[in-house]
Amino acid sequence: MSARPLPRPRSDFRWFAPIQTRWSDNDQYGHVNNVVYYSYFDTVVNAFLINKAGLVPVTGPWMGLVVDTRCSFFAPASYPEPLEAGLAFAERGRSSLRYEIGIFRADGPETLAHGHFVHVYVDAENRRPIPLPGSLTAAIDAAAAG
Amino acid sequence: MSARPLPRPRSDFRWFAPIQTRWSDNDQYGHVNNVVYYSYFDTVVNAFLINKAGLVPVTGPWMGLVVDTRCSFFAPASYPEPLEAGLAFAERGRSSLRYEIGIFRADGPETLAHGHFVHVYVDAENRRPIPLPGSLTAAIDAAAAG
Amino acid sequence: MSARPLPRPRSDFRWFAPIQTRWSDNDQYGHVNNVVYYSYFDTVVNAFLINKAGLVPVTGPWMGLVVDTRCSFFAPASYPEPLEAGLAFAERGRSSLRYEIGIFRADGPETLAHGHFVHVYVDAENRRPIPLPGSLTAAIDAAAAG
Amino acid sequence: MSARPLPRPRSDFRWFAPIQTRWSDNDQYGHVNNVVYYSYFDTVVNAFLINKAGLVPVTGPWMGLVVDTRCSFFAPASYPEPLEAGLAFAERGRSSLRYEIGIFRADGPETLAHGHFVHVYVDAENRRPIPLPGSLTAAIDAAAAG
Repeated sequence: MSARPLPRPRSDFRWFAPIQTRWSDNDQYGHVNNVVYYSYFDTVVNAFLINKAGLVPVTGPWMGLVVDTRCSFFAPASYPEPLEAGLAFAERGRSSLRYEIGIFRADGPETLAHGHFVHVYVDAENRRPIPLPGSLTAAIDAAAAG
Repeated sequence: MSARPLPRPRSDFRWFAPIQTRWSDNDQYGHVNNVVYYSYFDTVVNAFLINKAGLVPVTGPWMGLVVDTRCSFFAPASYPEPLEAGLAFAERGRSSLRYEIGIFRADGPETLAHGHFVHVYVDAENRRPIPLPGSLTAAIDAAAAG
Repeated sequence: MSARPLPRPRSDFRWFAPIQTRWSDNDQYGHVNNVVYYSYFDTVVNAFLINKAGLVPVTGPWMGLVVDTRCSFFAPASYPEPLEAGLAFAERGRSSLRYEIGIFRADGPETLAHGHFVHVYVDAENRRPIPLPGSLTAAIDAAAAG
Repeated sequence: MSARPLPRPRSDFRWFAPIQTRWSDNDQYGHVNNVVYYSYFDTVVNAFLINKAGLVPVTGPWMGLVVDTRCSFFAPASYPEPLEAGLAFAERGRSSLRYEIGIFRADGPETLAHGHFVHVYVDAENRRPIPLPGSLTAAIDAAAAG
């Protein structure tokens, strides 16, 4: 097996948002199902884009298409505990951006799970790649400056 | 068609909990999908049971089985807006309890959707109906007393 | 409590479609979660509309808005067992249609759960109610004729 | 950006299972949401484990814990189209197994999306890692022999 990643500290992440768990997040082993973490990823990335970077879903001029996601799992979580997602901004391409995302307990120092989420930004009409929108790069720079 | 229900005011409900929407709650028409409201119902009823009425999922001595749910929809909601769920306590049987649940915008006066959720409480071992647990009837009485 | 419905036979339903269960359908009690049945309802109604009644989601001229759903639960199901959904056509209004839906084991004689699903059909542009589309009433009549 | 993976052919996979899409799989951009692919992953791996490798969820002596998943996306899919999942068996550790999973259109030659899914097998009681169960290694060898 390739080298296993280790949990990451809060200081690796730049922007945080709370995550509310749901009854149906727990699977038959009593823990938040692995699939659900990706729904947290989707939710926090889009919360950042909508609240900070000017994304207007469906009717706006640009959108993000997901091209690659990954998550490594270190410790279980369970509804009803509150969680928190941290976002970091890794490689920037001309049209693409790689987010790193950590999922924490509300008061936890290290990731329960973390991974990446790669978006390619496209024109909402023709779905062709566009340069990273200025409102997005400004939001990343503001978050990184903290 | 049978008489259509009308939106209900906040004053019809006794216990409230916030609901965080998720990106994947929206369906291809851009609104929270009808199915997802039932996941809010499940989440708020279990939050009440766990936080107020002594339910310990999976390892505790009693559990609720869902026997009937219904929801009427009046106005759409969309991620990322925050919602709120209100709970009321309607018919009590020997083993069963009918909750009424309203879904509101975070600052909304009337239900966007509301319905009911009927639980039968059973012994977690043999799954036979039991009288309503005392911790549950006490929690309902406390919530109803406000 | 009001009178409890009883399981219904296959002969009450006119059009059937298979339902594949998923790992994540099971909740922490090891059974398909009550919420997931509504996702089966949504899937079978839209399968009927798309395959038989000319619905073209998102880009077509009409769409259905869900205004009321209900489900009563009689016996549990679990992934990985295959299920089947039956559809019946109940009250027709000018713009609305009440479907009744039963969920069966693949070879089961009686519903594990059943309920209703009320759609109002609207113009996709202005979302105002329209008369039931001719392609839909024809599909219902064909299914009812068997 | 690191080198982008390319779609993979059917011949890369050893065991296939059909995937039924659901209305709620489509997100507000009209395509199966990225999160949902992981629910397909979970479903196909567990179908293999239950049908071929002797897994008995919840009450059996062993279980798989998910420690790492990844998916790369190449082309969109949409409900109601039928899909198919292919499974391949990559690195085997003492207690862990890395599955590779491809998602295809029902008649498609190349993956719409593919990725990996790493399970660590544990004793269901104490959740400590165990050697790969014999029924599992036998099932893999049988599938690989085709």
